Amino acid sequence: MRIAVDGMGGDHAPQEIVKGCVEAAQIIKDEIYIVGPEDTIRRELKKYRFDRNQIKIVHAPEVILNDDPPVKAARTKKDSSMIRSIMLVREKKCDFAISGGNTGALMAGALFNLGRIPGIDRPAIGMTYPILGSGVSFLVDAGANAECKPDNLLEFATMGSIYMNKVLGFPSPTVGLINIGSEEKKGTTMLKETYQLLKKSNLNFIGNVEARDVPFGAADVLVCDGFVGNTLLKLTEGLAQKVMDLLKKKLNATTRSRLGALMLSNQLRELKRDFDYSEYGGAPILGVKGPVVKMHGSSEAAGVKSAIIKGVSYVEHNVVGIIRDSVIELEEIAISE
Amino acid sequence: MRIAVDGMGGDHAPQEIVKGCVEAAQIIKDEIYIVGPEDTIRRELKKYRFDRNQIKIVHAPEVILNDDPPVKAARTKKDSSMIRSIMLVREKKCDFAISGGNTGALMAGALFNLGRIPGIDRPAIGMTYPILGSGVSFLVDAGANAECKPDNLLEFATMGSIYMNKVLGFPSPTVGLINIGSEEKKGTTMLKETYQLLKKSNLNFIGNVEARDVPFGAADVLVCDGFVGNTLLKLTEGLAQKVMDLLKKKLNATTRSRLGALMLSNQLRELKRDFDYSEYGGAPILGVKGPVVKMHGSSEAAGVKSAIIKGVSYVEHNVVGIIRDSVIELEEIAISE
Repeated sequence: MRIAVDGMGGDHAPQEIVKGCVEAAQIIKDEIYIVGPEDTIRRELKKYRFDRNQIKIVHAPEVILNDDPPVKAARTKKDSSMIRSIMLVREKKCDFAISGGNTGALMAGALFNLGRIPGIDRPAIGMTYPILGSGVSFLVDAGANAECKPDNLLEFATMGSIYMNKVLGFPSPTVGLINIGSEEKKGTTMLKETYQLLKKSNLNFIGNVEARDVPFGAADVLVCDGFVGNTLLKLTEGLAQKVMDLLKKKLNATTRSRLGALMLSNQLRELKRDFDYSEYGGAPILGVKGPVVKMHGSSEAAGVKSAIIKGVSYVEHNVVGIIRDSVIELEEIAISE
Repeated sequence: MRIAVDGMGGDHAPQEIVKGCVEAAQIIKDEIYIVGPEDTIRRELKKYRFDRNQIKIVHAPEVILNDDPPVKAARTKKDSSMIRSIMLVREKKCDFAISGGNTGALMAGALFNLGRIPGIDRPAIGMTYPILGSGVSFLVDAGANAECKPDNLLEFATMGSIYMNKVLGFPSPTVGLINIGSEEKKGTTMLKETYQLLKKSNLNFIGNVEARDVPFGAADVLVCDGFVGNTLLKLTEGLAQKVMDLLKKKLNATTRSRLGALMLSNQLRELKRDFDYSEYGGAPILGVKGPVVKMHGSSEAAGVKSAIIKGVSYVEHNVVGIIRDSVIELEEIAISE
């Protein structure tokens, strides 16, 4: 497999991206194409030992910045590392593209250059939500579509179920609709209509899920609009950070507490890892006609490595192809109503 | 002051409600009227020593249940402990009412029996959001209005600012709009319009706040629709619970870790308290013509006590009257545009 990695996307690019690529290459056999200004990437690569047949550079002089307007950047910065990465997929020179850069631009770039799967109205970002201490849920949409219609959420649920089934191996993933109450009639008009669509679908829909139950793994696939999804993810991230800060402060409070912390060092290390999002891989853009994966913008080498390795699995399971086929089925259900 | 407490509202009613009333009476001088079936409340009260001049029973034979349809329950169960509590405020027999029961019914009951402050389109629930380790923010709306217009959010911001200023003593409370990005043009159409209204207002508006920054105390007043507010609160609650569960498990993992935990017992107790929502008091229903406070449904005695005591401060500061006066000011701004 050939993997296109946007060498300039993310808060710690290019250093951590390049480092993560080198580390991934020690684990997988696939070829990695790091896309970015040739000199810059070469300078980073020089820091490591690596196989020149496995890691290659594709020159792209421009960079899309985090505060660039997404649609405009995707249209005009054609020589950017991000758009060039996507083009490698379009031209079938790579099997998938991965970037930690501007989410909106990546979404727009994937849409413009790969196109949407016919029948999918709105592509979405799916993201694994760590159930602290054990397993993951899969959240769709994680932030691509702030405003949605019921049909969009049905598509998100379908694409999420396919991902959980094919990539993560859940035999019949449960689908929960994020809502402010568990009863069928709760929430906004949009959510009440979505509830009915999900109920009629052939998905394993288990009803509404309240945010309180999300950390306990209330459903395998968590469905919501991108506003709610993004809010859930960001609050989880912020709280995890805050709890670790607070814990650190408390452990350092007295000589006695520092001694106690020393005796707990294994457990505290585990806790830190549970809270570490870099372990959980990237977020696929679902509904476009080619595999594109968004990494967390703040990914360091470990996160880059993990996103690359999980991305391979995403492609091997042909999620894009299966979504395409499933949409036909979805449309048949809609027509038969 | 005379306080009406719904003796039957909440997951641990009437036991913990009555216990909380007895505990509150040991701290405040005010009279407490526990509303509910006389025999039931009397039986609970018998467990404690208390001053019969300070704690009294008001008989109400019916109970509104958590899964009663809110509006219907508020209209038809006039002899319920909840509606009778509100009626005591309406009839000026009590200075405020407090309940841990069905939120929607409490909201509807307050609206029907006390009326809304003229000029306020949508009353809202305001809730203190604990900034772990230090202080609070104030979140409006915490769950009363799932779907909102920009004008509603401006009202929420105004009422929240008044509460933070008058009850919690913040000289010029900052107002943040919960959004999925910090830039002015982020989020839904509704939020973009709200941003402009807040910018033009005389509130101390500091812009959009991302969920990630909420646990760090990004703004004194956090403004959002009831869907987002409820989601933020419930996810925080769920995560806090999950983190404590996980920590407990890890501390019990080995003999060595149990010994470490013993040395950290003071710090762990502090952490548990930081996570304890019962410390933070009740949630006022803002925008109705009388003081009504919602307690957390899962409140135990400590939470009931805290909600009663904080409620006294809410009434003493005449928040209802000040909101009424401020609405006139708000309307003058709107007209002068």
